[in-house]
Amino acid sequence: MALGLSASPPAVLLLLSLLGLAAAGKLLVVSVDGSPWFSIREGLHMLQQKGHEVVVVAPEVSLHVKPSENFVMKMYPVPFTQEEMDKVFKGSVMDLFKGGPFLERVIRQYQQAKKTSALFLATCTHLIHNKELIRYLEESKFDAILTDPVLPCGAILAEYLSLPSLYFLQQIPCGLEYQATQCPNPPSYVPRVFTDLTDHMTFLQRVKNMLYDIPNFFLCDVVFQPYAELASEFLKREVTVPDLLRQASIWLMKLDFVLHFPKPLMPNMVLISGVNCAYKKLSQEFEAMVNASGEHGIVVFSLGSMVSEIPMKKAMEIAEGLGAVPQTVLWRYTGKAPPNLPKNVKLVKWLPQNDLLAHPKTRAFITHGGSHGVYEGICNAVPMVLMPLFGDQMDNAKRVESRGAGLTLNILEMTSTDISNALKAVINDKKYKENIQRLSDLHLDRPIHPLDLAVHWVEFVMRHKGAPHLRPAAHDLNWVQYHSLDVIAFLAAVTLLFLFISFKCCLCCCCRCCCKKGRTGKATKAKSH
Amino acid sequence: MALGLSASPPAVLLLLSLLGLAAAGKLLVVSVDGSPWFSIREGLHMLQQKGHEVVVVAPEVSLHVKPSENFVMKMYPVPFTQEEMDKVFKGSVMDLFKGGPFLERVIRQYQQAKKTSALFLATCTHLIHNKELIRYLEESKFDAILTDPVLPCGAILAEYLSLPSLYFLQQIPCGLEYQATQCPNPPSYVPRVFTDLTDHMTFLQRVKNMLYDIPNFFLCDVVFQPYAELASEFLKREVTVPDLLRQASIWLMKLDFVLHFPKPLMPNMVLISGVNCAYKKLSQEFEAMVNASGEHGIVVFSLGSMVSEIPMKKAMEIAEGLGAVPQTVLWRYTGKAPPNLPKNVKLVKWLPQNDLLAHPKTRAFITHGGSHGVYEGICNAVPMVLMPLFGDQMDNAKRVESRGAGLTLNILEMTSTDISNALKAVINDKKYKENIQRLSDLHLDRPIHPLDLAVHWVEFVMRHKGAPHLRPAAHDLNWVQYHSLDVIAFLAAVTLLFLFISFKCCLCCCCRCCCKKGRTGKATKAKSH
Repeated sequence: MALGLSASPPAVLLLLSLLGLAAAGKLLVVSVDGSPWFSIREGLHMLQQKGHEVVVVAPEVSLHVKPSENFVMKMYPVPFTQEEMDKVFKGSVMDLFKGGPFLERVIRQYQQAKKTSALFLATCTHLIHNKELIRYLEESKFDAILTDPVLPCGAILAEYLSLPSLYFLQQIPCGLEYQATQCPNPPSYVPRVFTDLTDHMTFLQRVKNMLYDIPNFFLCDVVFQPYAELASEFLKREVTVPDLLRQASIWLMKLDFVLHFPKPLMPNMVLISGVNCAYKKLSQEFEAMVNASGEHGIVVFSLGSMVSEIPMKKAMEIAEGLGAVPQTVLWRYTGKAPPNLPKNVKLVKWLPQNDLLAHPKTRAFITHGGSHGVYEGICNAVPMVLMPLFGDQMDNAKRVESRGAGLTLNILEMTSTDISNALKAVINDKKYKENIQRLSDLHLDRPIHPLDLAVHWVEFVMRHKGAPHLRPAAHDLNWVQYHSLDVIAFLAAVTLLFLFISFKCCLCCCCRCCCKKGRTGKATKAKSH
Repeated sequence: MALGLSASPPAVLLLLSLLGLAAAGKLLVVSVDGSPWFSIREGLHMLQQKGHEVVVVAPEVSLHVKPSENFVMKMYPVPFTQEEMDKVFKGSVMDLFKGGPFLERVIRQYQQAKKTSALFLATCTHLIHNKELIRYLEESKFDAILTDPVLPCGAILAEYLSLPSLYFLQQIPCGLEYQATQCPNPPSYVPRVFTDLTDHMTFLQRVKNMLYDIPNFFLCDVVFQPYAELASEFLKREVTVPDLLRQASIWLMKLDFVLHFPKPLMPNMVLISGVNCAYKKLSQEFEAMVNASGEHGIVVFSLGSMVSEIPMKKAMEIAEGLGAVPQTVLWRYTGKAPPNLPKNVKLVKWLPQNDLLAHPKTRAFITHGGSHGVYEGICNAVPMVLMPLFGDQMDNAKRVESRGAGLTLNILEMTSTDISNALKAVINDKKYKENIQRLSDLHLDRPIHPLDLAVHWVEFVMRHKGAPHLRPAAHDLNWVQYHSLDVIAFLAAVTLLFLFISFKCCLCCCCRCCCKKGRTGKATKAKSH
């Protein structure tokens, strides 16, 4: 063992890997469709470059998970077509823009959520029940599985194949990641999802935050019940989804405290936000568009990969708002162009979002507030106008706004003036640029690039067959034991018993004294008689 | 901004630093004497190499903090001599070996602790009251301060000079690091210091663990009261030691979960155990000793830098035990050589501990269980025989033993047979080597070397004037608010009020019904009459 080897083991492993001497691993990937896939994809490319074999399992019909030369793709049939799936997602988005009374909107969204959930559940069921694919997976002898736990299909497979697993996520709606990692999550300063709160809360806000915890006690069970049934049937024993998620070796979490509010972590949580920050040179087409923008520069506008079209009325309102700024706006939009589209607005079917944000001529970023996009905005220090639609987007928007790095608009209620005012503010008021620049500086100043960090932990789990030394003993305690309620009750009982006995003894002594005094008194009296 | 810059900011910073383009920082270091200094020293060398200016403030009389070419040393006089200090420390160690009834031993140790504390307090007082030195520090315009919070002298200076601070530590006796970082620390699975417990506890062990928390409520106040008074006088306002420690930007913690039991962490805790793992080639003298050991190899034996001498009776017992193994034992010992010293035992005044442990011929490591030495043992995968004496050594020994990587002996009660048996066991029973090798593999498999990590965070704090984005909002809550007791009380009151009103309403309705029925009944009766 030479000096260099001892001082820097990761460098050695990298060297060995480049020389093909380190054991190459075999990784199974079960990704959730949608934007999470974009972040996972980056890591898979690097793993393949380092000599590992990557197999991605995906349904034949999906939004974004497509074959690539960086991995082997194993596809399985699902009982719906691409058109049917696109229709469901498009319907969900269009539904958000429909007005109406509160109750009506809730019922509509619930029905849409049911349709989407049914799609995801069908996808999972068809994976689990695909005997040929399962046999292939059994025979393939993988070293680990990388999956997104928002849908527990990968977790079920990990349990069935007895594989150590890594999870890749920002958050799971009903706070299941805290339960599954045994991570403390005090409601006094850790805002719950969908609450629109920051970490500094008034008394009433803390009451609200705690009330938001109540549905979590049963909502998770309801949401994940079909998966629990699927898993129990497949694994031939009763399991719950939290049981499955508790088995994860490493949680690769897309969060950074420049955006999220500081909170406790567990040893097996690895923070890797910013994995998608590296950028390429713009294509000639986009470079030309940007250069044509002149001194005013450009604004990048995208409502995310899930939103391809919005109602014409809303599109016209937005177009009018965008026309009021001197910047060229590159708007990713696949719907019908609004008739009032101003000259400075260019509609494109697709745009290289991160590469555009990295351009020095970019002045602002209009985004729906998905975590992927928000971190790209932070990476490239571009002030944001946020138009959150659903999921964690409201919370992300709140976080950006609370840092003074952007402004949030209510996409349903905003007028064209609101849009132009917000855009002018984030571009012309220096404080937004200063704040996002500060966040960006902090975000980028890390001891190791998040992509290298993510890849290291994937390799770690493959090399060591998991990371059991990072698993807290809290997993072996029940709720009462974890909170030491049995110990507190025991100590209270002992203390009370001690006090009771002491009191009884004192009482006894006092009685005896009094009796003695009484008898002495009587005796004295008797004598004196 | 080019592709490389965006993809790998730390590499850029390193490059800029090498080119002398990155702003060089100015770091003030206030180290606690003893073994913590050895770990800090390594980092200072690297910081100096990266172009930063490092100033170490130390008393003229100290155990290990000595001038070096890697930093500027500012010394200040203290009211005791080297001999007086050595006598106090030597007395403390010798006292540990004296027998006697329990109470007598406790009183003796308390008196020794008082003497040691008086030395440390005097050192701190003479630093704080040294007007010339303080003026120099004020004028020097440092960017940050690096200090060990076990003694809060550095923390007082940080507050006075308004400097962002980094703490470097393993733990603070009464768990003050949890209070100061707002880190959750559940007694149900996080064993308290000095309890000799692991993370898997029976009910009664959990009771014991919780009882050990009780003294912490007042012990910290008693221990740190003189420092609180010193700080309040110096800063001209009332402060407590926890108030001071709460200001730390980053806690560089010498812990790794291959040794410590997994527990919650906070975002500003950085784990850097293993900073002292890089080793150099052995000198000719030691290389010759090791090579002369033949096929049996060597055993490295050191009771740490604080223990230079032990009572002759104990030394003879140890010598006898060591004589029963075929290995050559290199024993760091500055006391008088025991007359029964066997041929295979070589006494040396000093030994290159880590470099020897890294030698392939090293079979075992006899250590007092200081965290510095234990991590060197883990780095180099050498099974250990632990003879803990005081402080965190008992806990470290328990951790190594619970991992099956060593055996613990009670240094006061052990016989020569116990020593030879333990040594033979860890050398000949393969499971010890296998277990320590597994721990070592996990410990060394990190994405970045801990020394680079520590240096990064020191530079981060210097560059960004602290790390406020990692500070949890919990610091702004009092105990009742943090635990949401006010919210729980409010919700309970509202629920009770609601139940009470509902009950009253029901009662009222029932009464009315009954009355009506009664009246109807009476009316019917009246009618029927």
